Amino acid sequence: MKTEVIEKLKQICGNDFATNDLSQIQGYLYDETENLIRPEASKECIVVKPSSSEEISEILKYANEKLIPVVSRGGGTGVVSGVIPTRPSIIISLERLNKLVELDEKNLMITVESGVTLASLLEILSNSSDLFFPVHPGDEGAQIGGMVATNAGGTGAVKHGIMRNHVKALEIVLPTGELVTLGGKLLKNNMGYDLLHLIIGSEGTLGIITKVTLRLYAKSNYSGTLVVSFDSTRDAANSVPAILQSGITPRAIEYVERSIAIKAAKHIGTTWPSENGSVDLIFIIDGSSEDELYDTSEKIVEICEANNAVDSIIAESSKEQKRILDIRSNVYTPYKEHVADGLDMAVPPSSIPDFIDDITRIAKKYNTEIPSAGHIGDGNIHNFILTDENGNLPSYYEEFKKELYKTALKYGGTITAEHGTGKTKKNYMSLQYTDREIKIMEGIKKVFDPNNILNCGNIV
Amino acid sequence: MKTEVIEKLKQICGNDFATNDLSQIQGYLYDETENLIRPEASKECIVVKPSSSEEISEILKYANEKLIPVVSRGGGTGVVSGVIPTRPSIIISLERLNKLVELDEKNLMITVESGVTLASLLEILSNSSDLFFPVHPGDEGAQIGGMVATNAGGTGAVKHGIMRNHVKALEIVLPTGELVTLGGKLLKNNMGYDLLHLIIGSEGTLGIITKVTLRLYAKSNYSGTLVVSFDSTRDAANSVPAILQSGITPRAIEYVERSIAIKAAKHIGTTWPSENGSVDLIFIIDGSSEDELYDTSEKIVEICEANNAVDSIIAESSKEQKRILDIRSNVYTPYKEHVADGLDMAVPPSSIPDFIDDITRIAKKYNTEIPSAGHIGDGNIHNFILTDENGNLPSYYEEFKKELYKTALKYGGTITAEHGTGKTKKNYMSLQYTDREIKIMEGIKKVFDPNNILNCGNIV
Repeated sequence: MKTEVIEKLKQICGNDFATNDLSQIQGYLYDETENLIRPEASKECIVVKPSSSEEISEILKYANEKLIPVVSRGGGTGVVSGVIPTRPSIIISLERLNKLVELDEKNLMITVESGVTLASLLEILSNSSDLFFPVHPGDEGAQIGGMVATNAGGTGAVKHGIMRNHVKALEIVLPTGELVTLGGKLLKNNMGYDLLHLIIGSEGTLGIITKVTLRLYAKSNYSGTLVVSFDSTRDAANSVPAILQSGITPRAIEYVERSIAIKAAKHIGTTWPSENGSVDLIFIIDGSSEDELYDTSEKIVEICEANNAVDSIIAESSKEQKRILDIRSNVYTPYKEHVADGLDMAVPPSSIPDFIDDITRIAKKYNTEIPSAGHIGDGNIHNFILTDENGNLPSYYEEFKKELYKTALKYGGTITAEHGTGKTKKNYMSLQYTDREIKIMEGIKKVFDPNNILNCGNIV
Repeated sequence: MKTEVIEKLKQICGNDFATNDLSQIQGYLYDETENLIRPEASKECIVVKPSSSEEISEILKYANEKLIPVVSRGGGTGVVSGVIPTRPSIIISLERLNKLVELDEKNLMITVESGVTLASLLEILSNSSDLFFPVHPGDEGAQIGGMVATNAGGTGAVKHGIMRNHVKALEIVLPTGELVTLGGKLLKNNMGYDLLHLIIGSEGTLGIITKVTLRLYAKSNYSGTLVVSFDSTRDAANSVPAILQSGITPRAIEYVERSIAIKAAKHIGTTWPSENGSVDLIFIIDGSSEDELYDTSEKIVEICEANNAVDSIIAESSKEQKRILDIRSNVYTPYKEHVADGLDMAVPPSSIPDFIDDITRIAKKYNTEIPSAGHIGDGNIHNFILTDENGNLPSYYEEFKKELYKTALKYGGTITAEHGTGKTKKNYMSLQYTDREIKIMEGIKKVFDPNNILNCGNIV
């Protein structure tokens, strides 16, 4: 990257906030993508840390004029290489846009700069409000702007939905440098096309998000955790719609294969609470009183028993709740060293049993196993493709993965439910979409970013 | 319109389903837009009634090749002239796409053809399911496709949100004739740009919706209605966030000025139940038991009383509930003959009192009144601009309306919350959006509809 570029960026953001020193930019070249599948980052990058939308606007105007690729980077917690600069790029880190703009309790909304982390947002809320924000993708180092750009999901989607459902306004800087505000502190807005919803999930390719207004909700006073065990995935899966149809909407309904749960428990030095059965559902429920919680738990167990549940455990103490949720959070950890790729497919929830049967059969064909756990209430299952015995990508990786993707699509599913397309899934767009749809997406990209400078390589 | 066009359409859809006979097409030239502000329809139109997506695809391929304007038309219940053909056009009426495709109780979803009316959808659900669909824009003659195209709202948005929150998949025919399916029976999907959400609310300009998959929900067993009266809009408005913050989410929170409520009640031969106060909030609440309902009502009244409520009435019987809701449904009726334009602005809910003060002051300046009622829980207030004494558009209409729009925008509001942009609001896009945003919308239109044939004149 030319010296004049770094000089220009120092001029915009200050001498301390633009560097191409490899030791300083190293930490900005990768995200949480599994090592074996992540693309190589260009080392010829400049990391710049603007402190305002205006500085970002100046950077983009300059980059757009000089045709320099730009990567906007949030917390770097993504797993699809969305922020890996595969070409020499200006990397805009949003970490200094870390201020609370306004906690507006009267409208049940909060506005933050996009570099505020989820951890900070939760802290602000717990310190100064009885309101809460429901989306939690797991890693609290995620920045709110990144969570919008990737339309983050997580376990709470059964009840509260995904990021899209809660974003009310965005300030963004367009690739051509203009600052625009989309949406507002509004619950309804039908003027023009909804550009707000187009930006959500567009992975930084259409603009850099600088401010986010989120809807907040009243906290539930009580929450509880419930483990119900089954002998088959089918019985477990059949319980889910029956529960939802009865009017109970748990905050989360998680599915874990017992073999995984046992490994995860052992890994963190504890044991899985249930001995019967081979798969488990973990329910997180909330309510306005302990009685309501107990009542809801009873009803869930009753419905599960009607679907052949073989065991159920209500976590009475908060310590026991924490133990179960810690195990759930660690289902991935024992496999970490052996994971080549973590998949993120979703299918219609009712197709989960057939889908899991299919992918188990496919894994057998490749003489491997494919551990499954995930958000069964959303039809979103995470599977791990394991490395070969030498810790490398297995020779069948590409073929195996494509077969799995096609299986999800056969059920009307999606290749990626919540992780996003990024650079690692982009090559599979044509499995899921027609040529005309992909052309439309390319056309949209061009409308926003005529010189194709921003977060190139994601999606289109 | 040339003879060859009508011949071609007859060839595609059958002789009985294409006509340019004025007596037969008359009912397809207008929607529910107020007479004084609706644009003149071209009488040189052909109405065609395809029975399938494939026929629509053929029509659009032909129209796109011959550069003939096409208007797609649902139930015709819109109020912003979205389906009025201002140029000689092929009008595609979707009335024959009126079949249930699938009621999928296991996934809590229903798929219908786009010409199914809301009335039919509700009937299907009440006859064969314990599930319900929550969006109700008032007129059950609305077609589901039209409700998607206009992102319909209504009174239930406080709890259940708007159409956008419940649409999971769409089949659409693109203006260039290709048939595509967007989304799926999925609760999460992050592959590519979200074209589904771009289509929702795009008023038929980007494609013709032919099938719709909607999320369904468990019915609440009990519902109740509550009227709480106040001496001021400010006290009423302040009660709303306090209720939401307490964890109570009513299905609807409606606001009516007393003078309007009295007129509406009289109009339908009854009386308004409350005598104290000058404005009312109507709450519709639901719950799983009568006790819960009573408990919730008590809490709402308590919060309202802390905000200076002067009266509260719980409608005990279903007859009394119906009476109150009938009055609410008729707030517009007594004014009907005198309404020049029905407005649909929204502001952040907390700005409602200031907003109403402002617009009342502006109305006084023009020596008129501006009756207000609406969805206060969403910040969405409907106001009527009244005719002059001769039943014509008042001379100050344009200036008055613009001043009102600018007032909503001053509070970070929107010109149209739920009615849509259509042809009557399109000219005010530049009040709400920057040139670059409008250019982006025009660019998007061009990507979908390069020859600008479909529902032209709406939005862009």
